[in-house]
Amino acid sequence: MSEFWQGYPKVYKELSYVKSIIKENLKGSDVYLKDSIIPSVEQGGKMLRPAFVLLSAKFGEYNCEKISKLAAVVEMLHLATLIHDDIIDNSKLRRGCESIQSKYGKDFAVYAGDYLFCQCFNVLSKDDYAVENLKDVSKTITRICMGEIKQNYFRYTKKINLNKYIRIISGKTAALFSLSFILGSNESKCDRKLVKTLGRIGYNIGMAFQIIDDLLDYVGDVEKMGKGTQNDLKQGYYTLPIIFALQEDKEGTLSKILDNSTFKEDDVKKIFKLVIKLNGVEKSKKLVERYSTRAFNSIKKLPDCESKIILLEVLETLIYRKY
Amino acid sequence: MSEFWQGYPKVYKELSYVKSIIKENLKGSDVYLKDSIIPSVEQGGKMLRPAFVLLSAKFGEYNCEKISKLAAVVEMLHLATLIHDDIIDNSKLRRGCESIQSKYGKDFAVYAGDYLFCQCFNVLSKDDYAVENLKDVSKTITRICMGEIKQNYFRYTKKINLNKYIRIISGKTAALFSLSFILGSNESKCDRKLVKTLGRIGYNIGMAFQIIDDLLDYVGDVEKMGKGTQNDLKQGYYTLPIIFALQEDKEGTLSKILDNSTFKEDDVKKIFKLVIKLNGVEKSKKLVERYSTRAFNSIKKLPDCESKIILLEVLETLIYRKY
Repeated sequence: MSEFWQGYPKVYKELSYVKSIIKENLKGSDVYLKDSIIPSVEQGGKMLRPAFVLLSAKFGEYNCEKISKLAAVVEMLHLATLIHDDIIDNSKLRRGCESIQSKYGKDFAVYAGDYLFCQCFNVLSKDDYAVENLKDVSKTITRICMGEIKQNYFRYTKKINLNKYIRIISGKTAALFSLSFILGSNESKCDRKLVKTLGRIGYNIGMAFQIIDDLLDYVGDVEKMGKGTQNDLKQGYYTLPIIFALQEDKEGTLSKILDNSTFKEDDVKKIFKLVIKLNGVEKSKKLVERYSTRAFNSIKKLPDCESKIILLEVLETLIYRKY
Repeated sequence: MSEFWQGYPKVYKELSYVKSIIKENLKGSDVYLKDSIIPSVEQGGKMLRPAFVLLSAKFGEYNCEKISKLAAVVEMLHLATLIHDDIIDNSKLRRGCESIQSKYGKDFAVYAGDYLFCQCFNVLSKDDYAVENLKDVSKTITRICMGEIKQNYFRYTKKINLNKYIRIISGKTAALFSLSFILGSNESKCDRKLVKTLGRIGYNIGMAFQIIDDLLDYVGDVEKMGKGTQNDLKQGYYTLPIIFALQEDKEGTLSKILDNSTFKEDDVKKIFKLVIKLNGVEKSKKLVERYSTRAFNSIKKLPDCESKIILLEVLETLIYRKY
C-alpha cells in the first residue's frame, strides 16, 4: 500500500485508519484467526477498493468515521474472497506472504473466510447504516460467488468464450469495484445520478483491472507481482488472451495443445508463443483501453474536486503499470 | 422432515412453506448452484431450527410471512455451515444424499456455502426487519466459525478437555439453536425477558442435541442416521465420550492408542470398548440429561399455548431418540 499511495498523504493516512478499524474488529476473535488474518491486513496490497470508497464519498457530505468503516467492510469482503480463492487455486503466496491455506491448512481457511464475511455484516449492523448498503453488499457477494463458480465451471474447457469471460469477470472483480464507489457515494448522500455514474466508473475500472491482471499472466514477472506468472494457465483458467487467440487459431494448433488437461512445461511455452502470435495479448490490451477510456471519460465529467484529480491519476497509474 | 413433524400438521405445512421460500431465493442463481443445493432443501432433515423460529414466534404477535422468511434464513445459514463442514470432513453423505463437496468438488462447495451465507443477508435486508436481527445473525455466524475453528484446532490432540468441548459445541451448535428462538420471539415482539428465556431454552436444547449427536458416533448405526458412524473418531475429533473416558483412564490404555494419529480398524474397535468401559458413554448421557432437564423446566414455566405443548413433546422425542 505504502508505495502506491505515497503521493497522496491524505488518502494514505485515511487508509491507515481503515486498517486500524479492521484490526480492531479482529481483536475479539480467536487468537489463530487474528494471527492468520492480520499479516494480509498489514501488508494491505494496494487497498484500491477501500480507497475508492473514500474517494467517491468525497463527492458528497463526507463523514470520516462512517465512511472509513464502510471502506473497512469492503476490504474485509475482499480479503474473505482472497482467502477462499487461495483454497481453490492452492496458492502458496498472497501479497508476498505465505497464504492462509498454505500456512494453516484449507480447513482453517474455509472458516477464516466465513468469519471475515460475517464480520462485514457485523460492522454494517452495528451503526445506523442505510439498509440499502446491506442490500448492495449482499448482492455483490452473490455476484462474486456466481462469477467464481462460473469461472470454476469453465476450467480446462474451451467452451469459454468472450461473452462468458466478460460475465465471469463482471461478477468476480468488477462488482466489488463498483460496490466500492456506490457505498461511498450513497452514504455521503450524493444524488442518484451521481451514485450511478460512480458505480459505472467502478465497473469499468474493475473490468480493465481484471483484464490487465489476466494479461500479467502472459507478460508479468514473479518478483514484481508477489505471485507466480502463468499461474492461471497452469490452473486451467483460460483467460482473455487465450480466448482471443483461439478466435484466430484457424489451423487449430493452440486448440490441440489445450486439449491436454495437464500441461508440461514445454506445452506452457508453446501456448505462450501462440497466444502472442495469434494476437491474444494485443487484442486484450485493446479491450483494456476500451474499458479504461470509458472510465476516463466518465471521471472527466464528474464535478471538480480533489477526488476527481486523484481518480484520474490513479487510473492512469493502474492502466499503464507495465504489462 | 416428513416423519418428524407428521404429528403436527400445522408445523408441517408451515415448514413446507419455508422450504418454498428457500427454493424461491435460489431461483435467480446459477443453474449449478440451484441443482446442487435444492436436494438438501428438499430432503430437509428434521428442520428443527426453522421449526423453532416458528414455534417461538407464536409466543408473540405471529406474522406468518415475516416469520417464515426468518425461518428460511436460519435454515439457509444451517445449510451453508453443513456445506462447508462437509469440505473439512471430506463427508461423502449428507442427509442421505451425496454431499455437494463429493458430487461437485470442494472448489464448488466453498462458493456454494458462501453463496448461501450471503443469501441469508439478502433476505434480511429486503424486508424491514429489525437491525437487531441482523446483528444477532452475524454474531451467531461468528460464534459458529469460532467453534468450528476451535474444534479443528483440537483435532487429533488430547489437549481437548470438558471446558473446551463445551465452548466448542456452544459455538458450533447451540448458538444457532438459541438464535432460532431469539429471532422468532424478537420479531413477534415478545418482551425482553421472554426472548431471553426462549434463547436459553434453545441453547440448552442445542447442547443436549449436540452431545446426543456425538454419542451416536459410539452407538448409532449408518442406516438410521444417513451418515457413517465412528466418523468423528476416525476424523480425529475427540468428543465428549472420549473426554470423559480419558478422565478415568488411570492406566493410560486409551491415551496410548489415541497417540497414534491414524487409527487402524482394530484401534477403532479397541477405543470403542474402552470408552464404554471407562464410563464415557454413561457420563455423556448424564450431561444430556442435565441440559435437557434445564430446557424442560424452562419450557414448563412458559405461558400456556400450543407451541409450549409442541416444544415439550419435540424435546422428549429428540432426547429419547435411540442412542
